[in-house]
Amino acid sequence: MHIQSQNRLLLGPGPSSVHPEVLKAMATPLVGHLDPYFLQVMSDTQGMLRKVFQTDNQLTLAMSGTGSAGMETVFVNLVEPGDRVIVCIAGVFGERMKDVAERSGAEVITVETPWGRAIEPDQVEKALKATPGVKAVAIVHAETSTGVRQPLEEIARLAHDYGALFIVDAVTSLGGIPVEVDKLGIDACYSGTQKCLGAPPGLAPVTLNARALEVVRNRTKKVQSWYLDLNMIANYWGEDRFYHHTAPISMIFSLHEALRLLLDEGLENAFTRHAQNGELLQSELQKMGLELFAAEGFRLPQLTSVVFPDGVNEGQLRKQLLEEYGIEVGGGLGSLKGRAWRIGLLGYSSQKRNVVLLLQAMKELLGQA
Amino acid sequence: MHIQSQNRLLLGPGPSSVHPEVLKAMATPLVGHLDPYFLQVMSDTQGMLRKVFQTDNQLTLAMSGTGSAGMETVFVNLVEPGDRVIVCIAGVFGERMKDVAERSGAEVITVETPWGRAIEPDQVEKALKATPGVKAVAIVHAETSTGVRQPLEEIARLAHDYGALFIVDAVTSLGGIPVEVDKLGIDACYSGTQKCLGAPPGLAPVTLNARALEVVRNRTKKVQSWYLDLNMIANYWGEDRFYHHTAPISMIFSLHEALRLLLDEGLENAFTRHAQNGELLQSELQKMGLELFAAEGFRLPQLTSVVFPDGVNEGQLRKQLLEEYGIEVGGGLGSLKGRAWRIGLLGYSSQKRNVVLLLQAMKELLGQA
Repeated sequence: MHIQSQNRLLLGPGPSSVHPEVLKAMATPLVGHLDPYFLQVMSDTQGMLRKVFQTDNQLTLAMSGTGSAGMETVFVNLVEPGDRVIVCIAGVFGERMKDVAERSGAEVITVETPWGRAIEPDQVEKALKATPGVKAVAIVHAETSTGVRQPLEEIARLAHDYGALFIVDAVTSLGGIPVEVDKLGIDACYSGTQKCLGAPPGLAPVTLNARALEVVRNRTKKVQSWYLDLNMIANYWGEDRFYHHTAPISMIFSLHEALRLLLDEGLENAFTRHAQNGELLQSELQKMGLELFAAEGFRLPQLTSVVFPDGVNEGQLRKQLLEEYGIEVGGGLGSLKGRAWRIGLLGYSSQKRNVVLLLQAMKELLGQA
Repeated sequence: MHIQSQNRLLLGPGPSSVHPEVLKAMATPLVGHLDPYFLQVMSDTQGMLRKVFQTDNQLTLAMSGTGSAGMETVFVNLVEPGDRVIVCIAGVFGERMKDVAERSGAEVITVETPWGRAIEPDQVEKALKATPGVKAVAIVHAETSTGVRQPLEEIARLAHDYGALFIVDAVTSLGGIPVEVDKLGIDACYSGTQKCLGAPPGLAPVTLNARALEVVRNRTKKVQSWYLDLNMIANYWGEDRFYHHTAPISMIFSLHEALRLLLDEGLENAFTRHAQNGELLQSELQKMGLELFAAEGFRLPQLTSVVFPDGVNEGQLRKQLLEEYGIEVGGGLGSLKGRAWRIGLLGYSSQKRNVVLLLQAMKELLGQA
């Protein structure tokens, strides 16, 4: 079998479809990971990542793994056995955080809310009051399992008031809605490349501020992961260029090109584009009589959970959409399994014509056309 | 800055230059990670990896990280805190194994030999005799820091005689010299894609036999890494297709294409090609009066450490080679720093014309032309 294009339009929760220029960058003949040209590409990529994270953090780089590796990077580096960490859970990725934090040795205190809703700052404050010596508060900014946008300002303030680090999962938010790392005082933040950044999956942008980095530098115990140890990786991405592992060259090329396109468009313009296309999709879905799962006022423009009425076989519809239209959307997770779709308008996939096409296809499949 | 081809010929210790068809596969428009087409590509890739590892192991897959992530995968899954592991050290990558095993909680017993030589089976037997209850013996097959080929047969037998698992690092060997996983009874083996497999860096092929998998399944404690937990990843790559993380789609495409090219050529033919080009390079380097660092009889055809006489500034020569010829070779590590090159003839880079060109360029740079 030869690898061949399947002509898919990716409107699921990620990966998103990728700009042809990003694909071209992927196909660039390789250079070595210590080649002067590649070191320049790494520096450039760091500079662009800082702009996208809206930060001046020195330690801003792309880990050599997918978004989940970014999550693990932050926890294994910041947490030492017995540290208390508050993890906010409002969907699958909050649950994953808990698992990852526990495997890093954390004593996890959870703050939970039903799926489809945002975490209330009061809940976090209660947990902070009840738990002495909390080292970090961690939360998912854009919960990919529900489509909920989590406001961060107050929780950031609370975490700092109680002396805790503030950790944010920006896998699905970065590049689609503002992730203001410095302004909000996010101490550690990670993302993935295959959502609103518009690159293929395979890298995890990560940024840590000086305060978080100090925690990493002053650990009493080695980071349990050699592969994700920021003490060493920072030296490879930093001025020393000390060899750690062979960076995934082609993936860095693709991220570089995706970031260049994003910054050429302008971050604000990209946010507006995501907002407008999300708004169009969500209002039209409601006109079709379908229910949006995420609470009003907390809906992500780039990720929409839509619930079908009883009697609709979403799996069958999703299969038809893929086979007849070449369009991929995602199924529901957890309690939404079998009754909802997750529609992504992420990065390059966030285009008006994609929304119009998807809506028309859905109408035809639902017999509303 | 736009990403542009640098027209490099990669003759260092990896990454190697990549076949144009593999680059094309990288640029294939994306599909979703649960798309029926992608699941087929994954199955196909697994089947081809089994052929290359010369194994029937069910659990054969590509981890979503570079070769070092493959190393970490094997240790975090097989080792529980306090387990005794013998690590053979004859270069940088043996040292890395020790670090990774210790971070996984192992009590590491080292068996060491001077750089440039192979580990003697007697050394391993002595360590096995002296240490009750050794869980695993781990060794690097092709030490990238020295160019030494480590014979495996006797050490495999010894490990099994003493009831230990046998772990092999095949990062630089797989696809270049035989890695006979089933025949030798290797219980766990990992590699990277950017050496003799001829794909870009970013994935780590891993294979575990039933005995090793049982150890993973019967752990008393969760695997410390969520990202590398084979209990879950096996379900994603297995029949269940249970979502774990978003696979690096484009990287899998490239690996698929690289494996297809390798198996089209035929494993035996690829071994012969690597052997012939390595032999040509090594005999000609000696004719030039240069010293091969690896002990005779234990030289890897795909990776050659060559030592320059005192007074030769290898760093300057290497820079000239890159700037005037566009050829990359690697510098020496450890005690070889500043006095040796590491020349890779890995995968697609292993071509007679590359050897001839490199030798001629070296002669000119050394004033021997």
